[in-house]
Formats: sequence, C-alpha cells, structure tokens
Amino acid sequence: MHDCLPVDTREACVALDAADPLAPLRDQFALPEGLIYLDGNSLGVLPRATPGRVARVIEQEWGQGLIRSWNRAGWIDLPRRVGDRIGRLLGAGPGEVIAADSTSLNLYKVLAVALALAARQPDGPARRVIVSEPDNFPTDLYIAESLAAQHGCELELVEPDRLAARLAGEAGRDVAVLMLTHVNYRSGRMHPMAALSAAARAAGALSLWDLAHSAGAVPLDLKAAGADFAVGCGYKYLNGGPGAPAFLWVAPQHLQTLAESPHLHRIQPLTGWMGHAMPFAFSPQYEAAEDIRRFLCGTPSVLALAALDAGLDTLLAAEPLGGMAALRAKSIALTQCFIDLVELRCADQGLHLCTPRNAEERGSQASFYRAEGGYAIVQALIERGVIGDYRAPGLLRFGFTPLYLGFADIWDAVEQLRQVLHRGEWRDPRFAHQSPVT
Amino acid sequence: MHDCLPVDTREACVALDAADPLAPLRDQFALPEGLIYLDGNSLGVLPRATPGRVARVIEQEWGQGLIRSWNRAGWIDLPRRVGDRIGRLLGAGPGEVIAADSTSLNLYKVLAVALALAARQPDGPARRVIVSEPDNFPTDLYIAESLAAQHGCELELVEPDRLAARLAGEAGRDVAVLMLTHVNYRSGRMHPMAALSAAARAAGALSLWDLAHSAGAVPLDLKAAGADFAVGCGYKYLNGGPGAPAFLWVAPQHLQTLAESPHLHRIQPLTGWMGHAMPFAFSPQYEAAEDIRRFLCGTPSVLALAALDAGLDTLLAAEPLGGMAALRAKSIALTQCFIDLVELRCADQGLHLCTPRNAEERGSQASFYRAEGGYAIVQALIERGVIGDYRAPGLLRFGFTPLYLGFADIWDAVEQLRQVLHRGEWRDPRFAHQSPVT
Repeated sequence: MHDCLPVDTREACVALDAADPLAPLRDQFALPEGLIYLDGNSLGVLPRATPGRVARVIEQEWGQGLIRSWNRAGWIDLPRRVGDRIGRLLGAGPGEVIAADSTSLNLYKVLAVALALAARQPDGPARRVIVSEPDNFPTDLYIAESLAAQHGCELELVEPDRLAARLAGEAGRDVAVLMLTHVNYRSGRMHPMAALSAAARAAGALSLWDLAHSAGAVPLDLKAAGADFAVGCGYKYLNGGPGAPAFLWVAPQHLQTLAESPHLHRIQPLTGWMGHAMPFAFSPQYEAAEDIRRFLCGTPSVLALAALDAGLDTLLAAEPLGGMAALRAKSIALTQCFIDLVELRCADQGLHLCTPRNAEERGSQASFYRAEGGYAIVQALIERGVIGDYRAPGLLRFGFTPLYLGFADIWDAVEQLRQVLHRGEWRDPRFAHQSPVT
Repeated sequence: MHDCLPVDTREACVALDAADPLAPLRDQFALPEGLIYLDGNSLGVLPRATPGRVARVIEQEWGQGLIRSWNRAGWIDLPRRVGDRIGRLLGAGPGEVIAADSTSLNLYKVLAVALALAARQPDGPARRVIVSEPDNFPTDLYIAESLAAQHGCELELVEPDRLAARLAGEAGRDVAVLMLTHVNYRSGRMHPMAALSAAARAAGALSLWDLAHSAGAVPLDLKAAGADFAVGCGYKYLNGGPGAPAFLWVAPQHLQTLAESPHLHRIQPLTGWMGHAMPFAFSPQYEAAEDIRRFLCGTPSVLALAALDAGLDTLLAAEPLGGMAALRAKSIALTQCFIDLVELRCADQGLHLCTPRNAEERGSQASFYRAEGGYAIVQALIERGVIGDYRAPGLLRFGFTPLYLGFADIWDAVEQLRQVLHRGEWRDPRFAHQSPVT
C-alpha cells in the first residue's frame, strides 16, 4: 500500500481503497452519511453492534436478571474480561490489565505504586524525581504533581530529545519513575518506548506509559519493550463511547511482588472494596486482592464496560486480516497520503506540519500549525462535513483510524480544506466563537 | 396509610394498594413478570424510559453527533446537571453536587479535603482522628485508613451509641472528621444526622455522610442538618443501573472557602483535567475549577450518566405526589407491614429482627438474623421469585422501594418466606453453594 504513494488524483485514492483488504472493516461502524471523521483520536465512531449490545445488557441483564446478573451474567468479572481483551492489543498477558475508572484515576493508582516501589529499593531515598516532558497531556502532569507532593518527590519536565541523557549514568540515579505519554496528543510524535524503558531500567528507575493515543492505533508490545506500568483510554481508538472506562496494565513481575508482599497491601492508595481479596466478605480490614483486581476501587459501570467491549470487537475483528500490524500499515499510508496532499494542494496557505515526517516516529495523526485562524478553519471544515479538531495554540489536528477511513476520504477531506483556505471561508465571524470543548 | 396497620390478610393489603396514591409510579418500571424485588437497596429496578434514553444518547448523540456532542448535547455539563437533580433529593442547592466516579472515589476526594481543612484550623495539629463506627460499610473504612495513613491521622471506630459522648467536651478536641454512613447497610439503622453533625460541629470537627442507603430512600436536608460533606451511590435507590456513577456534595461555605483560596487549589488530590478551571486550555499547570467541578477527575461515562439521569426521573416524578415525604411514609408502612407479617406468620422460625422497630431510627429495609441457613433461605426465596439478599453473618436483608412495591407484594413475599421455612426447603443442598457476589 505504501508503494503506491504519493497519489495525486482522486481516482488513485479510489483504486487504493478498492485494493485494501481492510476496507470491509468499515462496515462495522455507523458512520453518519456524508461525514468524513478525522477525530477518532478524540472520540471513536459508534460501532453498529454497540446499541444492540448495550440494549441487551440493559433490558435483559439489568431489567430481567437484576441483582442476579452480578453472578449469572458475569458482571463481577467484566473489568478483567475486558482488560484481557485490551491486553491483546498491548502485548500483555491475561490477568495483567483491568478496565475501569478513568485514565487520570488509573494513572494515580499505578504512579503511586511505582513511586512506592521505587522508594523501597536500597537506593530509594535518593530517587525522588518523576521525569516527564513539558508537553505531556496535562492530566498526567496534574496527577503526577499531586502524587509528587504526597510522596515528597518532584516532577521534572525534560524535553523529549534530552530524556535519554537525563536518564544516563550518574544523572539518572535520582530518578524514581519515567512517566511519558507514548504518542503526543498534539504533535503525534511517538516516543521510542523500548529504548526509553531500557534507559529507565538501566538508571534503576521504573517506566510508566500513557497509551491514550497508542492503544488501538499502533502495535504495542509492553513486555518486549520492558515497560513497568501503563494506562490508557477507552474512548479514542478503542471505540468505547464517550467517557468509556479506561485501563491499566502492570508488568507481571510487579504483580508478583505485590502478591508476595502482604505488608504492601495498601500500596495502591485507592483502596475501594472492589480491590479487596474478598469484597463480599465485608471485612472491616482491607486486604488487597492478590491479582490485578487490587487496582479496582469502586463499582465500575456495567453499561459503559459493555459498550467498551463492543468497541474492542471492532479492533479484534482485524486479527484474521493481520491485526494491529496491518492496521498500522494502513494508518501510516493514510497519514502519509494526507500530509502529501495537504502539502501539494494547500501549499502556500501557511500550514506547517508539526508531526514527524518519519512514520516510525509518529502515531496515527497529523497536526499542522497555522499562525492565524486555526480554530475557525476547523469550524469551517466541520460545517463542510470534515471533522478534525483544534488544539491551542494554532494546531489543526487530524486523526486517522484505518478501521473506518479510506483513501478517497483523505482526498475529499483535503479538497474541503483546500476550499476553506482558498476561499477564505474561515474568516466568517460565525466560526470565531469558541465552544467550551474544542 | 400507617393507621391501617397491622394487616393480617392479603385482602387488607390489596385494599391498601388500591388506596395508595403513589401506586401509579410503579408503571415507570420494567419489573419482570412474577418477581417480587426486595433488593432495590442493592440494585434499583430498570426504569422503562432508560433503554430509550440510553439508545438516543448512543445512536444520536454519539453516533450522529460524535465529538460535537460535548458541546451540542451538553455532555460537558452532565456531571453538574445530574448532580443538581440529585441535590433536590438531598436538600442541596444547585452547584453543590456532582455525579461522577464511584462512591469510594468520591469519598477519597471529600475526606481528603475534610482532613486538610480540619488540619488548617488553629487547633488543627491536635485534630488527628477520623471517627467512624465498626460496622460502617467496609469501603468507607478502607478509604479512610488509606487517607489516615497519608495524613498522619488515625481512624477510630466507635459504637453508634457512644458517638455523641466521643465528640462531647474535651474528648472531642482531637477529632478532625466524623465520617458515617447514614443508614447502615446491614441493619438498616439510621443515625440521627442533625444531632451528630451538630455534635461534630460543637467539637470543632467536620461531618461527612455516606448516603448510599439514604439518597432516594429517606428525606434528606443536608444543609438544615449542618453536614459538611456527603457522598452517595447512583445504583441503589436512584435506579441508575449497575455500577452507575456516584455523587458527592460539598456544603456551600466550604466551596466558597476553596474558591477564595488559590493556595488550596490542590487540596483535592485527584487532580484530573476535568477538575481544571479550563480543561480545554490544556495548561501544564493545574488550576482547580472555582466551583463544584474541582471535584471531577477524569472524563465520566456519558452513557452511565444518561442512565442515572433517567433513574432520577422516576424519583422526581413523585414530587407532585408529595415527593420524598410521601415516599418515606409509604416506605415506613411497607417495612412495618413486612416486619409485622414475618413476626406473625413466621413466628418460631428462628428469625430475629435486627432493624430498629422505631421507624425514625431506620432506613428503608428490614434485616432478620437467623443462626443457621440464612444464605440458603435467601437462595430458596430467589428460586420462588422473591429477591432479597444475604449479608454475613446470618442476615437476611430485605429492602423496600415504595416506587415499585405494594402491600400485596409484601404479603406474597412473606408467604413465600413462610413456605420456605415451614417446608425446610432451604435445606436442599443446591442452595448451599455460595456465589462470588452475595
């Protein structure tokens, strides 16, 4: 598919779609007529199967089964069952992932554990730094600062290109945890996970990865990469619906350490009853579950987990067609096609690519900076049926989800962008008003 | 309605139902045919409107509106809008409640704030005790112990009858927070909220109430009671569905203190981006929202919030019929009817009432202790179409939800219990096997 690029006609794009073995996967989605959706990196499209799946859970499992469904319909095991299926996209084994709560809350749980484990090393007292980068997604920085204050640590923000040096040799000896978002939400830049996890380990530190823009977007192999902890989002590339439950992953060696260390049973601070070894024994003493369930807190939404499970079906349906590797190849081709066409057909329009040109260094999005009018251009595009989004300052962000996008969509999206820019349509005052959510 | 009790025939029960002005509210629910559901205190029944409401959110707001629905469908304000509606059941004003996350997580947020505010008083350093009771719901104790360790405090469990003395005079001067569940999940005993909140205040401490078994079950007036913080559950009497979002309430004077104290912007430790003053400015610095939104963390499930909102409709529909006061009068009558009939018709069967006989001292449930066979009796009842639940050790627990239960249901439920006991049906070995969720 790569070999056919660059394309410079719509016909060539149509031909690429006709030859695309993944094209039938699009039928899994209820895409609105006439819409080109380049925002699956923010909220995935509705799978056709989701309404029926959620309706069954509501009408049969809840409506008819009522309280009995905790056992009969297996609600009690949903966070693990859904987690195991997410694990297939992450290079994680069964029992290493749970789905529940939000990314922010899951980060709070695993970062707290990472800091506590780091502090228990012989040189732990000297390890008081969480290393991240200035452009990490804000919620990650907010949560890290909260825990840093609690644990007497500090959060240090290092530019991506200087991370390896920060961890190397003597410099790395004060680092407790390297905490990064794998694919940057603005630029789409992707960190080299294996290299940085190895650097963290060589420094004696732990690595924690936020996969919000990676899970379901790029092939992942957390164990081969030597990562220690991960969290991620259910409502972007996993198509779980607005505010879908998030997930977390803990490397098996850490799960084992926790299971073998009864004195660490409170190391995860959000000690809600669903993380208890026997929640329905109603013991007044907290005793953490021996397995990944110790990372549960309260009762998770069954409806939201069912919708997330249906979203996962759309990704796992690609397994017989080559799975994440095949999706990644198409994602790279779609992204490249978009970049090429924008630079060809919207040249001299003030757009500057902010996403790495090397496909190995980016996720599944392309962002262009424009000094003026970025927000209004995105609004004008939305009015024309092309949905991307805007991220201050000045970024037009477009995400590419190979499950439901084709090359003709890319052509058509760029054509709309070209018209918006050439006609100056975005200068219309009605596009200037900024909504609460951008 | 009270005046007609006790009843001793099914006909009398049928007559009570015929005279009950709240009886039509039952039509709001999709109750399975032939089932008597005495477990709305664990998981509320499905409202008829919920499947359609959730389907619209999924198919129209998510499916068609996609990312635009954060603004156009008002998703971004759902936690506050749903929170305001819950507030009507709590005696809380607009902007004082949000719906999101789980009860355990919300307790973590408000208890952390309560401890920090208590510590900031002039005598704060001497206030190092969270007072609760030994039979509080376990998750509350687990979360309190986690925060006590973090804040250098201790959790002290005091028998309910000794709480007032613990808070009085010199004894109360080391108390930071009084943290109680208003209605006990096992016995149904209800604490005198106004008296204990006043005692806490007189001691210089703050009061925090878990309303899991009160919200939607008994009339509440948090402000008149002088409470400081509250949390509660969406999936019991609020009929929000399995694992529904929970809620939290903060007294307006504390919200004001927080809004006026920029140096306290991190006092709520779960500093996720949805609690930020401007989440979509994507600032690397955390700045808490000035209002109740500072108690949000990550992105809450829109589907789960929509189902909770539909559940609230069923309670708010009672407002023209007398609201919570009328529901409470019926709840007391249903509970009394059940207690009377069990003691009349299942006498000498080893059942001992554990719930206060004085209706003012209980919530909307009745629990009976039996030395032997409690779990199996509940299973045998479920097989006969009467759903209650079992709470170790030895408690048969029955909840009464006046929205969808009538007096004939009570008669029929007791008749089934009588048969199970008289026939010794529960001794069948198939009722002995204990499921993961009881």
